[in-house]
Amino acid sequence: MNQNKTFHQPISGMDVPRYAGPVSFMRLPQVAIEAARDIDIGLIGVPWDGGTTNRPGARHGPRQIREMSAMIRRVHHVHRTSPYDLANVADLGDAPVNPADLDDALARIERFFKAVVANGIRPLAAGGDHLCSLPSLRAVGGLRPVGMVHFDAHSDLWDSYFGGFKLTHGTPFARAIEEGVLDGGRTIQIGLRGSVYDLEDRAFGARHGVRMMDIEEALTLGPDKVMEIARSVVGDEPTYVSFDIDCLDPAFAPGTGTPEAGGFTPREAQSLLRGLKGVDIVGADVVEVSPPFDPSGNTALNAATMMWEILCLMAENVARRR
Amino acid sequence: MNQNKTFHQPISGMDVPRYAGPVSFMRLPQVAIEAARDIDIGLIGVPWDGGTTNRPGARHGPRQIREMSAMIRRVHHVHRTSPYDLANVADLGDAPVNPADLDDALARIERFFKAVVANGIRPLAAGGDHLCSLPSLRAVGGLRPVGMVHFDAHSDLWDSYFGGFKLTHGTPFARAIEEGVLDGGRTIQIGLRGSVYDLEDRAFGARHGVRMMDIEEALTLGPDKVMEIARSVVGDEPTYVSFDIDCLDPAFAPGTGTPEAGGFTPREAQSLLRGLKGVDIVGADVVEVSPPFDPSGNTALNAATMMWEILCLMAENVARRR
Amino acid sequence: MNQNKTFHQPISGMDVPRYAGPVSFMRLPQVAIEAARDIDIGLIGVPWDGGTTNRPGARHGPRQIREMSAMIRRVHHVHRTSPYDLANVADLGDAPVNPADLDDALARIERFFKAVVANGIRPLAAGGDHLCSLPSLRAVGGLRPVGMVHFDAHSDLWDSYFGGFKLTHGTPFARAIEEGVLDGGRTIQIGLRGSVYDLEDRAFGARHGVRMMDIEEALTLGPDKVMEIARSVVGDEPTYVSFDIDCLDPAFAPGTGTPEAGGFTPREAQSLLRGLKGVDIVGADVVEVSPPFDPSGNTALNAATMMWEILCLMAENVARRR
Amino acid sequence: MNQNKTFHQPISGMDVPRYAGPVSFMRLPQVAIEAARDIDIGLIGVPWDGGTTNRPGARHGPRQIREMSAMIRRVHHVHRTSPYDLANVADLGDAPVNPADLDDALARIERFFKAVVANGIRPLAAGGDHLCSLPSLRAVGGLRPVGMVHFDAHSDLWDSYFGGFKLTHGTPFARAIEEGVLDGGRTIQIGLRGSVYDLEDRAFGARHGVRMMDIEEALTLGPDKVMEIARSVVGDEPTYVSFDIDCLDPAFAPGTGTPEAGGFTPREAQSLLRGLKGVDIVGADVVEVSPPFDPSGNTALNAATMMWEILCLMAENVARRR
Amino acid sequence: MNQNKTFHQPISGMDVPRYAGPVSFMRLPQVAIEAARDIDIGLIGVPWDGGTTNRPGARHGPRQIREMSAMIRRVHHVHRTSPYDLANVADLGDAPVNPADLDDALARIERFFKAVVANGIRPLAAGGDHLCSLPSLRAVGGLRPVGMVHFDAHSDLWDSYFGGFKLTHGTPFARAIEEGVLDGGRTIQIGLRGSVYDLEDRAFGARHGVRMMDIEEALTLGPDKVMEIARSVVGDEPTYVSFDIDCLDPAFAPGTGTPEAGGFTPREAQSLLRGLKGVDIVGADVVEVSPPFDPSGNTALNAATMMWEILCLMAENVARRR
Amino acid sequence: MNQNKTFHQPISGMDVPRYAGPVSFMRLPQVAIEAARDIDIGLIGVPWDGGTTNRPGARHGPRQIREMSAMIRRVHHVHRTSPYDLANVADLGDAPVNPADLDDALARIERFFKAVVANGIRPLAAGGDHLCSLPSLRAVGGLRPVGMVHFDAHSDLWDSYFGGFKLTHGTPFARAIEEGVLDGGRTIQIGLRGSVYDLEDRAFGARHGVRMMDIEEALTLGPDKVMEIARSVVGDEPTYVSFDIDCLDPAFAPGTGTPEAGGFTPREAQSLLRGLKGVDIVGADVVEVSPPFDPSGNTALNAATMMWEILCLMAENVARRR
Repeated sequence: MNQNKTFHQPISGMDVPRYAGPVSFMRLPQVAIEAARDIDIGLIGVPWDGGTTNRPGARHGPRQIREMSAMIRRVHHVHRTSPYDLANVADLGDAPVNPADLDDALARIERFFKAVVANGIRPLAAGGDHLCSLPSLRAVGGLRPVGMVHFDAHSDLWDSYFGGFKLTHGTPFARAIEEGVLDGGRTIQIGLRGSVYDLEDRAFGARHGVRMMDIEEALTLGPDKVMEIARSVVGDEPTYVSFDIDCLDPAFAPGTGTPEAGGFTPREAQSLLRGLKGVDIVGADVVEVSPPFDPSGNTALNAATMMWEILCLMAENVARRR
Repeated sequence: MNQNKTFHQPISGMDVPRYAGPVSFMRLPQVAIEAARDIDIGLIGVPWDGGTTNRPGARHGPRQIREMSAMIRRVHHVHRTSPYDLANVADLGDAPVNPADLDDALARIERFFKAVVANGIRPLAAGGDHLCSLPSLRAVGGLRPVGMVHFDAHSDLWDSYFGGFKLTHGTPFARAIEEGVLDGGRTIQIGLRGSVYDLEDRAFGARHGVRMMDIEEALTLGPDKVMEIARSVVGDEPTYVSFDIDCLDPAFAPGTGTPEAGGFTPREAQSLLRGLKGVDIVGADVVEVSPPFDPSGNTALNAATMMWEILCLMAENVARRR
Repeated sequence: MNQNKTFHQPISGMDVPRYAGPVSFMRLPQVAIEAARDIDIGLIGVPWDGGTTNRPGARHGPRQIREMSAMIRRVHHVHRTSPYDLANVADLGDAPVNPADLDDALARIERFFKAVVANGIRPLAAGGDHLCSLPSLRAVGGLRPVGMVHFDAHSDLWDSYFGGFKLTHGTPFARAIEEGVLDGGRTIQIGLRGSVYDLEDRAFGARHGVRMMDIEEALTLGPDKVMEIARSVVGDEPTYVSFDIDCLDPAFAPGTGTPEAGGFTPREAQSLLRGLKGVDIVGADVVEVSPPFDPSGNTALNAATMMWEILCLMAENVARRR
Repeated sequence: MNQNKTFHQPISGMDVPRYAGPVSFMRLPQVAIEAARDIDIGLIGVPWDGGTTNRPGARHGPRQIREMSAMIRRVHHVHRTSPYDLANVADLGDAPVNPADLDDALARIERFFKAVVANGIRPLAAGGDHLCSLPSLRAVGGLRPVGMVHFDAHSDLWDSYFGGFKLTHGTPFARAIEEGVLDGGRTIQIGLRGSVYDLEDRAFGARHGVRMMDIEEALTLGPDKVMEIARSVVGDEPTYVSFDIDCLDPAFAPGTGTPEAGGFTPREAQSLLRGLKGVDIVGADVVEVSPPFDPSGNTALNAATMMWEILCLMAENVARRR
Repeated sequence: MNQNKTFHQPISGMDVPRYAGPVSFMRLPQVAIEAARDIDIGLIGVPWDGGTTNRPGARHGPRQIREMSAMIRRVHHVHRTSPYDLANVADLGDAPVNPADLDDALARIERFFKAVVANGIRPLAAGGDHLCSLPSLRAVGGLRPVGMVHFDAHSDLWDSYFGGFKLTHGTPFARAIEEGVLDGGRTIQIGLRGSVYDLEDRAFGARHGVRMMDIEEALTLGPDKVMEIARSVVGDEPTYVSFDIDCLDPAFAPGTGTPEAGGFTPREAQSLLRGLKGVDIVGADVVEVSPPFDPSGNTALNAATMMWEILCLMAENVARRR
Repeated sequence: MNQNKTFHQPISGMDVPRYAGPVSFMRLPQVAIEAARDIDIGLIGVPWDGGTTNRPGARHGPRQIREMSAMIRRVHHVHRTSPYDLANVADLGDAPVNPADLDDALARIERFFKAVVANGIRPLAAGGDHLCSLPSLRAVGGLRPVGMVHFDAHSDLWDSYFGGFKLTHGTPFARAIEEGVLDGGRTIQIGLRGSVYDLEDRAFGARHGVRMMDIEEALTLGPDKVMEIARSVVGDEPTYVSFDIDCLDPAFAPGTGTPEAGGFTPREAQSLLRGLKGVDIVGADVVEVSPPFDPSGNTALNAATMMWEILCLMAENVARRR
């Protein structure tokens, strides 16, 4: 297989064993945003979990996902192509964070993502908790609201926690819709499940035109039909993809803060993600990987795998539009 | 969502984070049996594993299930109702036990469950090993034998172990049928699988009219058909539900004493349990969670989730019959 | 052994096995602060880690410490007395917290501790990260600054992090001294070790008269001499005791956010704490237990043991002054 | 159930608890190859992982698989027969190995398997990494090439690693085909998935007539159709079965060196293996169980279960041909 | 180094790697008691924990201790001799047990130990919980009471639990003294520590002349002086050695049922055990290793090491008296 | 504290949290050997464990040590200086390895270390198993044999394994002495302990003048006297320091291949290492960290800490000789 001569290429496990050499997303070179030239897609860590209302640890997510992403090789076995031949991809390092101040942390992350977008780079981020999606959406949806395909056990459309606090990992998409960076009418949530406090989030979603699909409905429809609906919801316009690792069953993703029994299998998630083919993905994230709750690294391996599936689609999209 | 003013309500994770505050089943108040008034359904721990023939630890089950049950919120996302609006539910604490004497332990547990039943409370217990079902059945089936829907990898219909010992976690339902507290003809066992010593349990089941369904048959039929059969087996009469966590595949429930490869997923188990709708569940248990074999707590999370599914049905049943 | 008839007594493991029954500190009754009458010493959980700059999880500390404290029985094997015969002790539950807002969380915790102190109760808290000591000190040192015996690998006297943020678990005692609730001249820090960013904290300590003792010095002196110095530093005036679990070597306390190689053994820590005999301990805490980093529970067992050592001294102190 | 009087029988868990007594495959007697008389099927450990290019530890596989195989009883619940009534089965111990020299290790293992085959014993081995299949194939395919049904995430048909090294766990079947001990045209690989370095292995397989079936194809066809194809590929001639535990999803088999997200469930694997009924299995292995990456033992339990499924078929095959 | 030609010898890790080959204590041959000829010292597993009042799992101890004992080689680095040149040592397998009946289990174990003693073999057992020492003492002290050197955090001299139950792992030595198989006046307990229910055990010990030494006293005296006292307590008469792994600090032995903070280090334990030189050890055990609470195997490694220290002394004693 | 303007400086945890940003030894810049200019001390990973005769996994050591070294800050709390002000230090990445061929791997590693030494850089390596010391010694002792201070439970002076194989992690120093790159007469081994196969290694050491000090002797002498002896053995000539993590007790370093009960504490190891002050350390390594056996990372934290202690001495040595 011919490798593209100008684009960044990952280190091969046939040259340097996968437990050796530098640690980065997909074993790609790490490039500082200041030095980023002609990058199409930027892999970014967001090591922050200040919005977490229950079990913390997602701040450690990017490091473990990078480590487990060494398991991913360069060619997709179904597409039979390599994203590194289609687009120039790099690891842009971690967004700056502040574990001791929520507002400052969000501001730092937002500035970083805005610099990425300003550079013409499409961000594919690894969280971090789900509140990290908010500054990312502010960047990619800054000019006009984006649509979103959202895989999650939870809607994250709640209003506030603990007596009025509006910024937690349970509220990012309520905020994003209110701020006008996310278009509720072009948003679909897939795989909702688990007990809920009440039905307030459903009401919010209904008011803003969000298509909320329970896992029961998704399983009845099957992945092909689900994604047909998803594609019709987001259309051809710029779209964000947000993948909360807790959409997987806890057996596959124990390392997360809010596990819910009865989730998707990774195989189903792969099928669903492959159904995004053709969607104009302008930004994406995989969030809520909390390594302290999974020393095995399996959760992070699944997260890296989902990033890989998204990356292949983003690269193909970039190549198509070039 | 309007909360019932007289019934006990769980603490909300939007007020007190789920890792804080007292530990009880579903974050409900803990009420001593002596002080129990107008309780419809009692959640009970049975911290005892004296009937275990292989890997122990189920005595630690109730504590870890209580802890993980803090993940469960008040409204069922499919039913769109809360059991706490339909029935008065409380945590009745742990049944008294004795880890150093099998007979005394069974006697203590039986007395406790008889007091619960005498109070007009329907017990929903968390084991403990499967021998804990015997004293519970003696209480709920004391006046006349109950039917049973039994989810398990094993039939637990064996005669004896180690040269004639008749009380182990492999024998409770043989005893219960012999004692006349369980009606074999109104009993169905779902999900049997794994290698066996011989076919003696099958013969016992056949003699007593037990419907024994292997997991292969259950998967071929699908959950809807399986539960149609189950409902026809137990009919409208009082029925016990016993859920051995090892009916799940060990990936979902590693924390158990006798894991068998190739089990149900939690999603399938949820589907099966929802098929109990309308059955007159007069008592239930979820057993064989052994925390030392699963520090992650996932097994206990699944157990708490299955208790939640059963609780919602019991509450609806209580409300319907009120 | 005669048990005091009026004071709260723990459940005995000879009556109810230690894995059964309700979970509380030392198996004592849990009493709401509003209902607290004639309590001398209150055991309090502070499930909050919002000041953590590195590995989180101390928010889960109180729950696991309570669970492991079931291992502690009622009589101290060296003192040959029971604190429950000398003072009325209760578990006051968890202080209210807010994981999504640092300032609000500190305010809630402070209000709770002020109510405790206002009730004439001496608090013995289980953290939470070390920033939790600040609201506690504001309560016990509110009228006049207290002295402190502080066991820790770190001085926690830093000025700020991440470009000027003044409230983290590395800064509480700088704040407490600046606010005048802690008397630097009556403060001793025992067991400092590990690499440091620079020597700024040493300078701060020197300016405020803090006696800073490295672990090397402590080991050379031996526990008796160390505590002779400690007692002379704090004198007879009201004194706070703060025990950061990371003063122990990580082999004994892996479940903590900032482990440093080469720490005290639990045996040495017990010797040191017993040297506090006679000191007027008006408040205390054991902090920085992060259960996600120690599924074994050993860290929490050591924390519970250190609480037990402090409790016995506090009870004796209460009895002496009664 | 009548037990065969001449064949070896496993210890029953109803006589000696499964955590007690000697440790061997399936609790069968351990017989030295020198003393083996009238053995039909030999269970063999190959504690060697010298061909591993990434995470090691498969050398510990045989010991943990033996331990977890104590969970397997004597009668298959679907077949309703016991392999120990159909064939004489024994644990032949571990093949001799050398962790410090690859060539010497392969030579030792090959000699051992040749002695097994020379004794008229069909080997069923537990690895070890996948390179262990090569000396086994050299033994069973020594006279003429065997066919193979191969369950794996990876084709293991690569040419070389690290600049020309031809013997790794990624190359055994390329070598076996080149050496003429494996018949590519009678070989099927089931469940291939995961990213790849390039498409070289596909080309090699195509050149040698190997039927390579991705997991996507296998899932679309369903197990019955897949195994119909498999049986038609291998026909009635002598066939080897190689089961790499990483064909299972990492949630079920975390203890392996090269996990790939999105694999088979154990239930699916059981269905596939049962489809081998009638195939003339002359040798088999279950490989790549790496216990250090799965302290729970679940991976080894699944490996023991797959050995059990294969053993039952081999025994039936032996009985049929006797 | 010359190996004795008639005595059993362990497999060498220089011939067969330590993770390969059969699993037995110290890699010695396993000999059935019926076939035991000219064995001086028998290593015995007692896989039973029916006397456990708190965390179970010691039934799994013998298997994991055997596995970790593969780490022990044939020559003691301080004595510079091998026990296998001084005495004939074998693994006698596991005593028969019954997890479902306490009385039957004790009877089976006692019969086994009586057969061992009747064969002229000195037993060195691996538990199992501490109640396993009772049937062993009944065997070795059957003709006349033995003395005992007992290393433990707990005295195990309690009268009864749970309202009068006399046989638990907290009561064996009270029973043994009452039955006249253990001579209280020739018994010393070393390393007592941790909170206690009351002082009843101290009173019992005092009445029967038991020398009870707290860890504080032992540390003040130092190992040489402690063992001088121990040797003077037991004198030259037959003596039993019982080593409860919980005498070690939980950092070294997390895998135990009743951990107490502040215990001995393995190094101190080795020093203490070496001080038994010259004592006529007629039987010994190492108990309370509970593998489910220590997947690392370190607890079992320490247990195997303590067995090794005792074995070397027993062998020297046998050789001296031959 | 003034930072040196020309030397590389680590990222501060007060700017970028320690779980964020790139992963390297001590958070220093990673510099390719080809680009290394004016580096005094090079931190190097050797991810290879091909010489391991028992439990593998040390190949994963460098990655986990790098990760845990983020815990180390820039100033030594006892020396009150920073090595980064005294010498120019960088992470040189990993030596190239080959997990599939022992001879090729050793050749690659040797070439890398020779390039380092040729650049005037003093290597401080993180293994890898202990055979990795051989190519390093070939580089630093290439011109004339170096002395060595060696901390280990094992002498690693054996001749061969498995019937004549001369290159394993138990033989490196026998080879190094035979090859003339290590001077036996200027070598001291500190902390030897644990059972041995025979006394052959002692004889080899004696023949070559190696000072072999058992841990019992080291503890009797105390660290000051031990290191006085060590300094007199190695004198002022170039000396290598090799620290096998298994010299620590397994409670502190469970993540290693050949644990031996009864080792040093990290505190003792720190004292011993500080006694190397003034020794001309021309190369050093910390080896045998096997992460799969310690998911907690404590072993790696201790390894990073020992590297830190050695680094501070090397830097001071460099500054002194500049």
